Amino acid sequence: MLFQVRMDVKIPAHLSETEVNDLKSREKTLAQQLQQSGKWRHLWRIAGQYANTSIFDVASNEELHNLLLSLPLYPFMQIEVTPLCRHPSSIHDDDR
Amino acid sequence: MLFQVRMDVKIPAHLSETEVNDLKSREKTLAQQLQQSGKWRHLWRIAGQYANTSIFDVASNEELHNLLLSLPLYPFMQIEVTPLCRHPSSIHDDDR
Amino acid sequence: MLFQVRMDVKIPAHLSETEVNDLKSREKTLAQQLQQSGKWRHLWRIAGQYANTSIFDVASNEELHNLLLSLPLYPFMQIEVTPLCRHPSSIHDDDR
Amino acid sequence: MLFQVRMDVKIPAHLSETEVNDLKSREKTLAQQLQQSGKWRHLWRIAGQYANTSIFDVASNEELHNLLLSLPLYPFMQIEVTPLCRHPSSIHDDDR
Amino acid sequence: MLFQVRMDVKIPAHLSETEVNDLKSREKTLAQQLQQSGKWRHLWRIAGQYANTSIFDVASNEELHNLLLSLPLYPFMQIEVTPLCRHPSSIHDDDR
Amino acid sequence: MLFQVRMDVKIPAHLSETEVNDLKSREKTLAQQLQQSGKWRHLWRIAGQYANTSIFDVASNEELHNLLLSLPLYPFMQIEVTPLCRHPSSIHDDDR
Amino acid sequence: MLFQVRMDVKIPAHLSETEVNDLKSREKTLAQQLQQSGKWRHLWRIAGQYANTSIFDVASNEELHNLLLSLPLYPFMQIEVTPLCRHPSSIHDDDR
Amino acid sequence: MLFQVRMDVKIPAHLSETEVNDLKSREKTLAQQLQQSGKWRHLWRIAGQYANTSIFDVASNEELHNLLLSLPLYPFMQIEVTPLCRHPSSIHDDDR
Amino acid sequence: MLFQVRMDVKIPAHLSETEVNDLKSREKTLAQQLQQSGKWRHLWRIAGQYANTSIFDVASNEELHNLLLSLPLYPFMQIEVTPLCRHPSSIHDDDR
Amino acid sequence: MLFQVRMDVKIPAHLSETEVNDLKSREKTLAQQLQQSGKWRHLWRIAGQYANTSIFDVASNEELHNLLLSLPLYPFMQIEVTPLCRHPSSIHDDDR
Repeated sequence: MLFQVRMDVKIPAHLSETEVNDLKSREKTLAQQLQQSGKWRHLWRIAGQYANTSIFDVASNEELHNLLLSLPLYPFMQIEVTPLCRHPSSIHDDDR
Repeated sequence: MLFQVRMDVKIPAHLSETEVNDLKSREKTLAQQLQQSGKWRHLWRIAGQYANTSIFDVASNEELHNLLLSLPLYPFMQIEVTPLCRHPSSIHDDDR
Repeated sequence: MLFQVRMDVKIPAHLSETEVNDLKSREKTLAQQLQQSGKWRHLWRIAGQYANTSIFDVASNEELHNLLLSLPLYPFMQIEVTPLCRHPSSIHDDDR
Repeated sequence: MLFQVRMDVKIPAHLSETEVNDLKSREKTLAQQLQQSGKWRHLWRIAGQYANTSIFDVASNEELHNLLLSLPLYPFMQIEVTPLCRHPSSIHDDDR
Repeated sequence: MLFQVRMDVKIPAHLSETEVNDLKSREKTLAQQLQQSGKWRHLWRIAGQYANTSIFDVASNEELHNLLLSLPLYPFMQIEVTPLCRHPSSIHDDDR
Repeated sequence: MLFQVRMDVKIPAHLSETEVNDLKSREKTLAQQLQQSGKWRHLWRIAGQYANTSIFDVASNEELHNLLLSLPLYPFMQIEVTPLCRHPSSIHDDDR
Repeated sequence: MLFQVRMDVKIPAHLSETEVNDLKSREKTLAQQLQQSGKWRHLWRIAGQYANTSIFDVASNEELHNLLLSLPLYPFMQIEVTPLCRHPSSIHDDDR
Repeated sequence: MLFQVRMDVKIPAHLSETEVNDLKSREKTLAQQLQQSGKWRHLWRIAGQYANTSIFDVASNEELHNLLLSLPLYPFMQIEVTPLCRHPSSIHDDDR
Repeated sequence: MLFQVRMDVKIPAHLSETEVNDLKSREKTLAQQLQQSGKWRHLWRIAGQYANTSIFDVASNEELHNLLLSLPLYPFMQIEVTPLCRHPSSIHDDDR
Repeated sequence: MLFQVRMDVKIPAHLSETEVNDLKSREKTLAQQLQQSGKWRHLWRIAGQYANTSIFDVASNEELHNLLLSLPLYPFMQIEVTPLCRHPSSIHDDDR
């Protein structure tokens, strides 16, 4: 089941550079694991923003919630979730 | 070059059923040609809305504009364009 | 899988009273069938508005989209969909 | 009398982990007492958000206000209240 | 139980002057009956707007909904409802 | 002359409990004096919010501004002012 | 007593050119009478908009409401009213 | 050339009372000099707000920008600029 | 003096194709004359929208207002005006 | 390929004057280099705001993103990107 998720990141100024780098490094590792598992289907940067737009393919709302909650940057993100479904005019197999 | 495009469709009440069906049929045909050409990379329905979220892969802003303008339902759409770029954490080849 | 759906209805002035009554009567019949099937779990009126807030229990985003699309008043509704999941503090069985 | 309440929680960074855990633990205990009493009829997590959507069944606006005010996380919540009433098409006894 | 209600009126251009005058006259009669009954506690015009702000004193959300629905101008109103309760600093008996 | 005033209070975290209690106590005393003088005609709590909606009866915009400015919690309030006038359908003497 | 009033005019397409010209001519006549009386203290066009920003000097909210209501273009205006008072740093006599 | 400028002031809590008083005193002095020069044509307080609405008469956008930038409270203001021009129905000489 | 102007065009459905073509043709002619005169310094299409963003170089707010008012499509445009001035870091002569 | 970019700058209070001056100086140097390279085609100050509106001419969304990210003030900017294309009525060579 597909969801579009937009994540806007705002890291507070009181974190040290080490803390921020650690957060980002762990975020990247987990993001890549989730992509390899097929749960995080697409991941694009929004030009000019510290933000991404992503497509998740999960079994349920619960699974989506738990994946997002597990992200190291989650406490510093504003998240917008849009449930998607297959478009009747789509011809791409991976839009299912 | 990638763009996320959201299209919300609102067909006015004064169009006849025949006109609407003709519009939708021509829209579907063109949408599928553009998908086959690779320009319209992804196309999903937004659950509960007469709206889609799409990913376009075009050579320039001009090409995107002309593609959208050529859609039969264009006059009845509200369109929002978001320029995307490859995310440094993405591992998918087709997120380029 | 649970979704909260808010539907705001705005019936256009050009419909005759007969058309409106027919729409409402078919809407009520279908709404009650969907409640009996367990898909439409809750249905409340918003005080002072021609609007409702509802809880749907469906297998997928697609099923939710198709249910909403099948409503006779769908063309005259503005719809807002919020994906829900079980709250860790909930003790009610029917909040699953 | 029914109310839909949406609560968005934003815990400030200056609280210690102990303070936060204590707040959350007391919040959960009270939330479950209020559910057992029948005042807090439904409680769902909003997917991807530190937020819930709830249905309260109270005798008056005053009772609702006092219940919300008594929540340990109240000072860190943004709250939206929507008065509900029974929908003429509802067939569920517990939508009263 | 008290509610603040704001009503913004927008009468469509296709109604004849006779229809509009009839609507307004019936609206005034009912508004005054509801004031005499004590249900419509206060009624003020918002300066510069075809709108009012009112205080209703009703037994329940349902009663409020049915009163508003019975207003002849209801189909042409945008309505905003705010549940109120007694303020701990209020000294006025009629603010209960 | 009547004004509807909505006040949303947000007390900053850096104030001590003593400072907050002192502010609230002085706010209550002044609010009650202004009610006794007839300037602050009505005062209601908005359910679920640290906010009130009030009706002031003052001689001028200046008097309203000075009253609001004199409130101890004024620096922590977001204030919205709506000028009112007697509604032609009102039958209540105290809606003047 | 001073009020800032912004008026945005939107004349509907179904009015004939004669009707529109008559409305505008009567609007201008009345606007100039109100300026001569001193009630309409200032009147400026907003660049690029069919809109004005004005300063009214009236005895009460009621007088302001009745003046605005008497404008021939009133039914086609969206109006925003902001109550003003003398600024403590103002040195201009006519800002009173 | 005329501009309407709205300034909303929000002085941060970390400034000392002495700093704030000094800022306000210098702001007042400069505001009055600019009024005497004729550049700051009108200055009104918005009732209930720490905000003003003003009319500036300057030779260019640049001059307006530099005047606003020179205000001691500028770093703590949210500013909205609206270009004005003479209204064809205005009869006041000083609305030019 | 420079202004950024955004124009969103929405041509109503009741105009015939001939009327629309005539409007667009006259709009283009005038737009090009104004560009040749140097008043309309830049003109870009916004990708995916029937809208443009433009830079005007005019002597005053009045001149800008009159230029915009003279555009054949003006009655069908929503216009947003932003006054600009030379940026201290700009090195381009034509950004003056 | 052209993009309109609006940048609103908000420098946090906890930076020292030296840090701020250093940031601004490096920002200016880089902005001028990017203008000389032709990537940053236009740069204007928005009157009354610590904000600019700019036109960038870049090869791709990626290049735009990287340019913006390299700005010393980037962490303190709110950025809005609008993709542009040549307007069919434009006669200016440098609007391509």
